[in-house]
Amino acid sequence: MAKKLLGIDLGGTTVKFGILTLEGEVQEKWAIDTNILEDGQHIVPEIIEAIKHRLDLYGLTAEDFAGIGMGSPGSVDIVNKTVTGAYNLNWAETQAVGQAIESALGIPFAIDNDANVAALGERWVGAGENNPDVVFVTLGTGVGGGIIADGNLIHGVGGAGGEIGHIIVEPETGFACTCGNLGCLETVASATGVVRVARHLAESYEGDSSIKAAIDNGDSVTSKDIFVAAANGDKFANSVVEKVSFYLGLATANISNILNPDSVVIGGGVSAAGEFLRSRVETYFNKYAFPQVRKTTKIKMAQLGNDAGIIGAASLARQFAK
Amino acid sequence: MAKKLLGIDLGGTTVKFGILTLEGEVQEKWAIDTNILEDGQHIVPEIIEAIKHRLDLYGLTAEDFAGIGMGSPGSVDIVNKTVTGAYNLNWAETQAVGQAIESALGIPFAIDNDANVAALGERWVGAGENNPDVVFVTLGTGVGGGIIADGNLIHGVGGAGGEIGHIIVEPETGFACTCGNLGCLETVASATGVVRVARHLAESYEGDSSIKAAIDNGDSVTSKDIFVAAANGDKFANSVVEKVSFYLGLATANISNILNPDSVVIGGGVSAAGEFLRSRVETYFNKYAFPQVRKTTKIKMAQLGNDAGIIGAASLARQFAK
Repeated sequence: MAKKLLGIDLGGTTVKFGILTLEGEVQEKWAIDTNILEDGQHIVPEIIEAIKHRLDLYGLTAEDFAGIGMGSPGSVDIVNKTVTGAYNLNWAETQAVGQAIESALGIPFAIDNDANVAALGERWVGAGENNPDVVFVTLGTGVGGGIIADGNLIHGVGGAGGEIGHIIVEPETGFACTCGNLGCLETVASATGVVRVARHLAESYEGDSSIKAAIDNGDSVTSKDIFVAAANGDKFANSVVEKVSFYLGLATANISNILNPDSVVIGGGVSAAGEFLRSRVETYFNKYAFPQVRKTTKIKMAQLGNDAGIIGAASLARQFAK
Repeated sequence: MAKKLLGIDLGGTTVKFGILTLEGEVQEKWAIDTNILEDGQHIVPEIIEAIKHRLDLYGLTAEDFAGIGMGSPGSVDIVNKTVTGAYNLNWAETQAVGQAIESALGIPFAIDNDANVAALGERWVGAGENNPDVVFVTLGTGVGGGIIADGNLIHGVGGAGGEIGHIIVEPETGFACTCGNLGCLETVASATGVVRVARHLAESYEGDSSIKAAIDNGDSVTSKDIFVAAANGDKFANSVVEKVSFYLGLATANISNILNPDSVVIGGGVSAAGEFLRSRVETYFNKYAFPQVRKTTKIKMAQLGNDAGIIGAASLARQFAK
């Protein structure tokens, strides 16, 4: 019988698991709460227990698996299979995740950064269509991403490859970013970034707008509210979407002028805006992409949603199936 | 006896040749004029004759070579080993360069774009120190480059990977580029780009400057004149170098925020300005690079000069030595 892959998507709230075929088909999936108490010391033991329990339930053993892959927040050492500084897990110190899981389960294990792993998932069976050159941009609380170039995930010399959220898109008058720089893409294209752009544009906007009124009243406004209002014809909200699309189009064009990938895939919560956002980003992408890049690189929306994590994680374990 | 490599750097004025060891040491080099008459139909035959002549001279035969590599202008098909649209060679139509050379000399042949090949050279035995992640930016008549990520030269899906000259650095008020876009790095950092920036800044500069005076008089001014004047304390020329360095620092930081290479190596004619330019570019790079990138990615000047082409070309042929 063909071996299976086990993918683990470790997040600050839940740990998601999936059992997949070698072709990337999800056969089973489940999730547990992430127990971050006591410096997150229960996380890895609870992951191991959850896997043992499910394998028993399905009548599977270690022999049935080619390998396990995991995506993790924090700084991941892919060689030593450790995680450091994953603060949303309360993991300040280095955790020997790989050693614990391999010795407890007897299955080969691989690990990478969560944004890289989501990129691998979308590239493998999602919008990337298994092309060797795919860039993934995720618009959520922050802006992250992953680069697959010539079939390889690009980590860079210091592990900071794919820091797409920190591309500078407004070098002279940009907003302050949590990284310490000014004008990063994350400051204008994350969920909070979209709202920040709205607050900034609201200062000089004259005209009727439910979004501007809410901002001026000090009411809570989300990026989703802005996209919904824009789709319903609110001119102010549309000007915000236009500005955000300009920044995303400029950044994706510059990434593509450097790498000429088959596609730039946009995912994450903000990407729920779908074609309404994609087509606007594409307009600016087309303005700023080199002609040969414009002809060959596509702007796509992600297809896998929350499953990108477990699918990408499982893809890390394909190396053991060879 | 260990096999040798033969590297060919095909340019619009000269064809340079080098015989190298497998370790990248240049043992012999020579050059011939590029004969672009009659649609460039004599170029390949003359390259073949030149190699035959030198091999006779040195008492070498096909058996002594692992392979031949070539860097060429134009659009290069690395699989079919053909070149199309190399207008400075008068090659409008597709040229079966690989087939001609392999059948005439009986030595395996590989070819790539000239900017990519120079990048390979600097990465192999130049400033790149054979690191798997190196970006090369060449500042000459245009701005070109090559990306080596995780050990692989990145071509991209349409062969436009590494179009560093067409990164947009001034999206809203940029100069028109030959590619049809506005605000490309090439418009402000090539040899003519530096002069363009000077002409633009001269319009609003008040003060004594030999460079501004020359521009206002309609005298010929080169990028070298500007760098020399800046180094000698001309304030206007310094403001030009500062602006060019801002653009180069922004572009190299954004490349590095995406790829986190070990180094970005700056070469080409404009880079003759040396440390005077490098240190200024680094200042802006440090301003715009993500903290982990700032700590790990270095800005370097190229070391190989004109030999980068033959050395990088020879490196293409190392694949045949395995």
